[in-house]
Amino acid sequence: MTTEVESVWLGKRVLVTGGAGFIGSHVVDRLLGESAAVTVLDDFSTGFREFLPPRAGLNVVEGSLLHPASVSAAMRGIDFVFHLAANADVKNNLKEPLKCIEQNLIATQNVLEAMRAWGVRDIAFSSTGSVYGEATIVPTPEHASFPVQTSIYAASKVAAEGLLTSYAVGFGFRAWIFRFVSILGPRYTHGHVFDFWRKLRHDPTQLEVLGNGKQKKSYLHVQDCVSAMFTAVAQARSPINIFNLGHHDWLEVDESIAIITRTMGVSPRLAYAGGERGWAGDAPRVLLDTTRLRALGWAPRRTIEQGVVETLGFLGDSPFVSRRLG
Amino acid sequence: MTTEVESVWLGKRVLVTGGAGFIGSHVVDRLLGESAAVTVLDDFSTGFREFLPPRAGLNVVEGSLLHPASVSAAMRGIDFVFHLAANADVKNNLKEPLKCIEQNLIATQNVLEAMRAWGVRDIAFSSTGSVYGEATIVPTPEHASFPVQTSIYAASKVAAEGLLTSYAVGFGFRAWIFRFVSILGPRYTHGHVFDFWRKLRHDPTQLEVLGNGKQKKSYLHVQDCVSAMFTAVAQARSPINIFNLGHHDWLEVDESIAIITRTMGVSPRLAYAGGERGWAGDAPRVLLDTTRLRALGWAPRRTIEQGVVETLGFLGDSPFVSRRLG
Repeated sequence: MTTEVESVWLGKRVLVTGGAGFIGSHVVDRLLGESAAVTVLDDFSTGFREFLPPRAGLNVVEGSLLHPASVSAAMRGIDFVFHLAANADVKNNLKEPLKCIEQNLIATQNVLEAMRAWGVRDIAFSSTGSVYGEATIVPTPEHASFPVQTSIYAASKVAAEGLLTSYAVGFGFRAWIFRFVSILGPRYTHGHVFDFWRKLRHDPTQLEVLGNGKQKKSYLHVQDCVSAMFTAVAQARSPINIFNLGHHDWLEVDESIAIITRTMGVSPRLAYAGGERGWAGDAPRVLLDTTRLRALGWAPRRTIEQGVVETLGFLGDSPFVSRRLG
Repeated sequence: MTTEVESVWLGKRVLVTGGAGFIGSHVVDRLLGESAAVTVLDDFSTGFREFLPPRAGLNVVEGSLLHPASVSAAMRGIDFVFHLAANADVKNNLKEPLKCIEQNLIATQNVLEAMRAWGVRDIAFSSTGSVYGEATIVPTPEHASFPVQTSIYAASKVAAEGLLTSYAVGFGFRAWIFRFVSILGPRYTHGHVFDFWRKLRHDPTQLEVLGNGKQKKSYLHVQDCVSAMFTAVAQARSPINIFNLGHHDWLEVDESIAIITRTMGVSPRLAYAGGERGWAGDAPRVLLDTTRLRALGWAPRRTIEQGVVETLGFLGDSPFVSRRLG
């Protein structure tokens, strides 16, 4: 396996957009470990410098994906792009509709155009399981029914997917599209585990919960996520490669709260906002069918509970997160 | 039927984007006939003033959907939006990728944001059967498998669909999304009938044909198209209403050429470019399942051949088209 992976990345020049972010910085670590030369392009709006200690083979560029010239400059000489920069704040997508479109779609268009200009052809992209909307089939396979988008976040991701595939067809690009469940683990600084952790630090006696606590979703540890992406890129070499990415297990919000409160040693009174959905457009049940990815030999090696606990461990050990995010 | 339709449109103030275009101008005619007050917003880049003779109840605004202020000004006091403005030049989508995104997606975002600002909730939108990519099921139903986008044109349309549905979920909009086959009939000034007509006017002795002549697609007469949209808006009142729109019949390119050459009285030598597809991303077979729309009582009343012949009749009678488009 190691030999095979090295054959893909050894000496490759890889651009990681959003490389200072949660998943991006783990991808950077893995790429450097596989002897790739890595350029990170990140605007540091949500990413952290602490996630990117200086190392040989790592070049960090601060710049916005909304500036075509910045993207083009970073693209020069690149062999492969991990396009992971995104506005991932699905819960608040209705507050700033244009932000999702700009950061998830226009940014992607700028990346694709810079690739076209420089003759870069290979791109891996972080989409989302949210593109399935409220799926009628659970676990949801990649070939599920044409979905109705229920959030501007997911709409912007499905739009970006469309751009990738149409560039693959029209310009001979090769695209790997990963539809993620929520990812957990060290360096995760948003999502429900972070939100609960932050609320409980401020007031361990009570916890407000969006929805009724019965939403049930799959999550995946970031290391398993990165392994999945690297397995797919090494082994799936079609012009368009679309993979669901998630755990076969899932976790109810109430179960997650039990893990979080136990780990933090607190016993809050729970106040439920009520309703089947955490927010407008939230899917009450998320479980993806990952048969396609498992056929390549990948499987998650950590439980969801490990993901929750390691996220909390990271947050407790990282005062720079609290300093910025409160 | 007439009574029912009148109850929907009588006294309504309707904005038609792209109202100077092919389908838009027919929608304007129908709305004025149903006693609506109509505002057209069009940049006249592809639309024609000749399609919009001045009439009582018609207000024509020249402006770009890419200028939020223009869209917002036109949206004031509106009850219902037909958003039909688009870059429909699918064949050339790879020459100007950004044009599709701007004119089909950013324009749509601007329309939705102007609606939100003014409290306008109802929008009908012209999407495309191209969103199904190369469909595995033919005739293709609305709930077909999650497709892979094969053209930037279709990617921009599926992106716009996603925006409409996510605004419906998030902001209480009501959306009618129509996935059209190619529409034919008077005022059609692009597409294969127009292209063939123009080539044959310049040289009736030979005709270059994209692909191998065996592409087989459904088409629909513009009057049947408009009737379908008005039937759906009058009768389907869910927050999100998605309808395929096409003829149960389809036509091979070679059959279409036979109709065109017979009608024009020419006998060109045919030169095929070859290949199953007319262009990168073209779907060789397009036939949509319109069961959903037929359940509302709609059915096409004209043959595809009538659509071809009437398109040619219009082109022959409209010297202003040749003056602009050659």
